Amino acid sequence: MRVGYAVEEWSVAMFDTYPADLKNDLALRWRRVRLSISEAGADGLLVASNVNIFYLSGRVFMGYIYLPVEGNPLFLVRRPSGMRGERVSALGKPEEILARLSDYGIAPPARLMLEGDDLPFSEWTRLSLCFKEATLINGSTLLRHCRAIKTPYEEMLMCRTGRRHAEVVAGFPALYKPGMTDQEWAVEMYHLMLRSGSLGLFRIAGRTMEAFMGTVLAGDNGGAVSPYDFALGGRGLSDSLPVGQCGMELQPGMAVMADVAANFHGYMTDCTRTFAIGRTSPMAEKAHQVSIEIVSELTAALTPGAHCADLHTLAMERAERAGLADFFMGLERKARFVGHGTGIVINELPVISARSTDILKAGMCIALEPKFVIPGAGAVGIEDTVLVTERGGINLTPCSTALVEV
Amino acid sequence: MRVGYAVEEWSVAMFDTYPADLKNDLALRWRRVRLSISEAGADGLLVASNVNIFYLSGRVFMGYIYLPVEGNPLFLVRRPSGMRGERVSALGKPEEILARLSDYGIAPPARLMLEGDDLPFSEWTRLSLCFKEATLINGSTLLRHCRAIKTPYEEMLMCRTGRRHAEVVAGFPALYKPGMTDQEWAVEMYHLMLRSGSLGLFRIAGRTMEAFMGTVLAGDNGGAVSPYDFALGGRGLSDSLPVGQCGMELQPGMAVMADVAANFHGYMTDCTRTFAIGRTSPMAEKAHQVSIEIVSELTAALTPGAHCADLHTLAMERAERAGLADFFMGLERKARFVGHGTGIVINELPVISARSTDILKAGMCIALEPKFVIPGAGAVGIEDTVLVTERGGINLTPCSTALVEV
Repeated sequence: MRVGYAVEEWSVAMFDTYPADLKNDLALRWRRVRLSISEAGADGLLVASNVNIFYLSGRVFMGYIYLPVEGNPLFLVRRPSGMRGERVSALGKPEEILARLSDYGIAPPARLMLEGDDLPFSEWTRLSLCFKEATLINGSTLLRHCRAIKTPYEEMLMCRTGRRHAEVVAGFPALYKPGMTDQEWAVEMYHLMLRSGSLGLFRIAGRTMEAFMGTVLAGDNGGAVSPYDFALGGRGLSDSLPVGQCGMELQPGMAVMADVAANFHGYMTDCTRTFAIGRTSPMAEKAHQVSIEIVSELTAALTPGAHCADLHTLAMERAERAGLADFFMGLERKARFVGHGTGIVINELPVISARSTDILKAGMCIALEPKFVIPGAGAVGIEDTVLVTERGGINLTPCSTALVEV
Repeated sequence: MRVGYAVEEWSVAMFDTYPADLKNDLALRWRRVRLSISEAGADGLLVASNVNIFYLSGRVFMGYIYLPVEGNPLFLVRRPSGMRGERVSALGKPEEILARLSDYGIAPPARLMLEGDDLPFSEWTRLSLCFKEATLINGSTLLRHCRAIKTPYEEMLMCRTGRRHAEVVAGFPALYKPGMTDQEWAVEMYHLMLRSGSLGLFRIAGRTMEAFMGTVLAGDNGGAVSPYDFALGGRGLSDSLPVGQCGMELQPGMAVMADVAANFHGYMTDCTRTFAIGRTSPMAEKAHQVSIEIVSELTAALTPGAHCADLHTLAMERAERAGLADFFMGLERKARFVGHGTGIVINELPVISARSTDILKAGMCIALEPKFVIPGAGAVGIEDTVLVTERGGINLTPCSTALVEV
């Protein structure tokens, strides 16, 4: 199998407006994905989801990308998009895909990968009829594994996003006014985030989790369970979105945890800081400090080769040594992870959990969020998005970790 | 088949906190869906998507609802949710569903409906192995058709949402400040909408469309195509979300169209108003007036029995008579619909398009959006969410339709 195509070899006019480093970066992503396709014994991958179309082309368009195991990708576009070039072809409906491949001298794949975790059943079925002769393979996990390791251009976007994210978070305390509800403060945080350029869009892999821009958990709402698989839940404002702030008035002594994501360029960073209305309990203050220390220890340990399960153990042991295991990662229903990948979606791989078999690689971006729920106070702790490097993790969301009293 | 279960017959303690009219309303929804299941010749429906779980239980939880063609629904809950009662059962994994049905004396379905347009292929496949003996039927369209016709409680929520939505929209002009970009004004609109209690969440059926809370289209950005199937697109701020405002500074003479959705209770209304920076062109003013008239005519025609295709024709003819057909519903790429259902998702059935075979029924909620794009000015026109009744449509989003100069 040929690897190492340089973007200069091609005529892909659709990328004329892209900076050179993005063009080279896309070539790198295609190379990596092609290698995975080859290892899976497939002949090609047909991508349809916005997340993976964005990953493989640097933009969202309506249509498909066909990436053969050898050769250049083909961009099949269903709506006018301004995209043009030798490898861009208009497509009326999926039934025409094979003919378009043939136009470009691409043989019908005998083994074809589709996004089985992302395409609805009915759409997979329709595509399967378009490729009657092909054996279909679910390629979603392969793509998630590729996306987990950021390319240089993606690293740059994650760094930029994290830096601006941290600046926004540093502005949260000044938005507080006595007598506010959790929702009122949250809305001012969202407002600041949007004014700072966040697109607001909160992309999540999988169909069960939903969220707006993030959550603000105050007092006992920090321990409230939600149906979603976030680290901490909160009752929410509505039975239609039972997560996050619940409309309670903020009272002296409460801890208030703000976990609002940032998305400035299509890449999301995660960062949590906790504030106290006046002074909160000594136990909450202690737990907050332990969270900071766990993030610090985990960050140092975020090197290629580290086992995710070991990192989870490290966090659990640290919480236990502090005598705070009962309050770690929730009360009634504990989250089973202390960190997760992030990127185009908020829940990229890997997951830092006891059951994970994943091993860190350089370029992964991990949101570390060892959090405590202290009865009578609320949720405390921090979250930072950290880039895995040979020298240990680099914090992409650096801002004061203090339990700021407002 | 027995129909007409009254909620009093059951012991469903999970609904104890619900108002009586919501309980009765859920019974009505179950009755309607059961009737559709029966007509489809199926024995039961297993629902897994948040949208349909919310529709059938009034809340989002993680798990499944099994609705047999006769009898009460069973609520299979995968995470603690505070739900309890005779018909609520904890579920570890989908492989246990058949055993849970058996616990409640429910026979394994020979013909089972699943949400084939909503479940990923891999999840459908896993469920198919849990129901090896069953013939599986795609029930997504059936549920969309049920959701299209609002029950009394849903009508009430739509009315409430629309009224508050209209109040928020009336506040948009006052948020304008000279020198703003389209994005800056949009962010202030989002902020007002959130402060007014909107959850912000923008639910869309299907996997291809994405949006934040709505769009603000100024000047020539009103005619810019996007990859999404919204009535009008706009370039957007990022290649990762190419829709809506694009960051341009607002200039005298521009028309600015604000299409920001509202979601206060899990039900969405749609309402668009257009503003002008100073004075815009006479042609834009005329087209705006024609849009108002089309909405008015269509609203009067929104009675049970009306054909969606005829309503589309009415709008097209009206635009043509005004000599504005070339500018109707976009320029380069025209939207093929002038209205769409709305409710739990922004794109409920029916669609008011030439190809639709749908016929209106009382209780449908239709967002009417006959819009024009006038070169040199921008997008103009209005959108209202209208309830179909025997006496014609009732506008749920009443506020000034004038092309307000700011």
